[in-house]
Amino acid sequence: MTTTSKAAVIGVLTASDRASAGVYADESGPAIETYFRRVLTTPFHMQRRVIPDGFESVRDALIDLADNVGCDLIVTTGGTGPSPRDLTPEATLAAAPRELPGFGELMRKVSLEQVPTAILSRQLAAHRDKCLIINLPGKPSAIELCLNAVMPAVPYCLDLLGAAWIDTDPSHVKTFRPKPK
Amino acid sequence: MTTTSKAAVIGVLTASDRASAGVYADESGPAIETYFRRVLTTPFHMQRRVIPDGFESVRDALIDLADNVGCDLIVTTGGTGPSPRDLTPEATLAAAPRELPGFGELMRKVSLEQVPTAILSRQLAAHRDKCLIINLPGKPSAIELCLNAVMPAVPYCLDLLGAAWIDTDPSHVKTFRPKPK
Amino acid sequence: MTTTSKAAVIGVLTASDRASAGVYADESGPAIETYFRRVLTTPFHMQRRVIPDGFESVRDALIDLADNVGCDLIVTTGGTGPSPRDLTPEATLAAAPRELPGFGELMRKVSLEQVPTAILSRQLAAHRDKCLIINLPGKPSAIELCLNAVMPAVPYCLDLLGAAWIDTDPSHVKTFRPKPK
Repeated sequence: MTTTSKAAVIGVLTASDRASAGVYADESGPAIETYFRRVLTTPFHMQRRVIPDGFESVRDALIDLADNVGCDLIVTTGGTGPSPRDLTPEATLAAAPRELPGFGELMRKVSLEQVPTAILSRQLAAHRDKCLIINLPGKPSAIELCLNAVMPAVPYCLDLLGAAWIDTDPSHVKTFRPKPK
Repeated sequence: MTTTSKAAVIGVLTASDRASAGVYADESGPAIETYFRRVLTTPFHMQRRVIPDGFESVRDALIDLADNVGCDLIVTTGGTGPSPRDLTPEATLAAAPRELPGFGELMRKVSLEQVPTAILSRQLAAHRDKCLIINLPGKPSAIELCLNAVMPAVPYCLDLLGAAWIDTDPSHVKTFRPKPK
Repeated sequence: MTTTSKAAVIGVLTASDRASAGVYADESGPAIETYFRRVLTTPFHMQRRVIPDGFESVRDALIDLADNVGCDLIVTTGGTGPSPRDLTPEATLAAAPRELPGFGELMRKVSLEQVPTAILSRQLAAHRDKCLIINLPGKPSAIELCLNAVMPAVPYCLDLLGAAWIDTDPSHVKTFRPKPK
């Protein structure tokens, strides 16, 4: 378990044909940025990108954000449904083959308490070396729900991966770090 | 998202060595047919088949039902346990490699409220192009439980896949279609 | 469904660099042995091993325990987290490619009621021919929680796999065997 005291680097990747073409504004990326600015108490840099849906586009952006930008955490939004153009989970596993299945299970569980179509989401989390990647839905209202569900475990996950140390404001999200045995 | 106004085609595939050999009558297939006749308010044709358990038998029947019969939805029953002859999930993924993991998770969750052996089920859902395939247990009593759990999301899933438009009687199953953003 | 009246053989595999190097004592293996001695009412032999974390080490030990020792059930402890050295789930699938996803889902669910970091566990169950393999966490306190959750379904699972007949003391764990249809 290696942690560093440098500021974390967080990538936010919006996968959306229409947002990347300017048909409408990307609302999800800014919503995620607002969330992290409110919840994290430790310093971080954020890099946001908006790209078209697709396998190669998402995979290559994830690899670039992890390897070249040096992200400790990447959060994607969009492209997790069953539509033919929804390829974010496939692209995530291509960039980060080691899945953490508990993330997808929990995010679907909390979403299912809101809408029965939550079972259509194929969202998952996986890591590429030290970088954790979490797929979020495309709808801004569902983003906070999913992040609130998994964030208590994210700082310790980054510890275990050897990524940057992050911490949260317990009035928003209570980070849990088990005591070492 | 493409939907058509033609009648949906629904396949029901019973995988059972004993039912296909006539050792006992297939009760699951008729139970599924009765379910859809009660729940769906939109027109549909149904094609039922009874075949032996096995990988090739199930895979080839699924591909034929999807590609040649033109099914929008196929429901299988049987062959989802851990026994060596239970190969329906493997066959489903061979015919339809894109899994929707929320279906299996939810069907196991509701089954687990009835029997602790629900964790032995490997049932899943996946799609082959426009055709959604859902694995159900072999026991008639568990079939309705599983279908009731996932059906609210099935019509919208077919919309997203570009399959036929179906709708349900809300006194039995409340279909949920999110508003487009 | 083939069952035998011979005593079951249960393997317990502790994957831990530090325990195998003698840096600290293996507490998880003995905790699992105590559990089975309390819960099972049918005769069994137990074989415990402590090995370093790693892919080949765990895979080869599982294969040896299943094929040469003749285990009906193997329980592993340790190596299920996201750390680079945590490779027990990968090794389990390499030895036993047929996963039973309901085990991992349920063990994470009950663990999540205790600690939010339960979503970091990649623990799973799978079988190699007649041998069921279940991954447990490394912490002794979490072991009993997970075993209590899945044990009611384990005897019937062994029946379906054609392994030895086991049964439990219902004051500890209520085994459930569905009636044959």
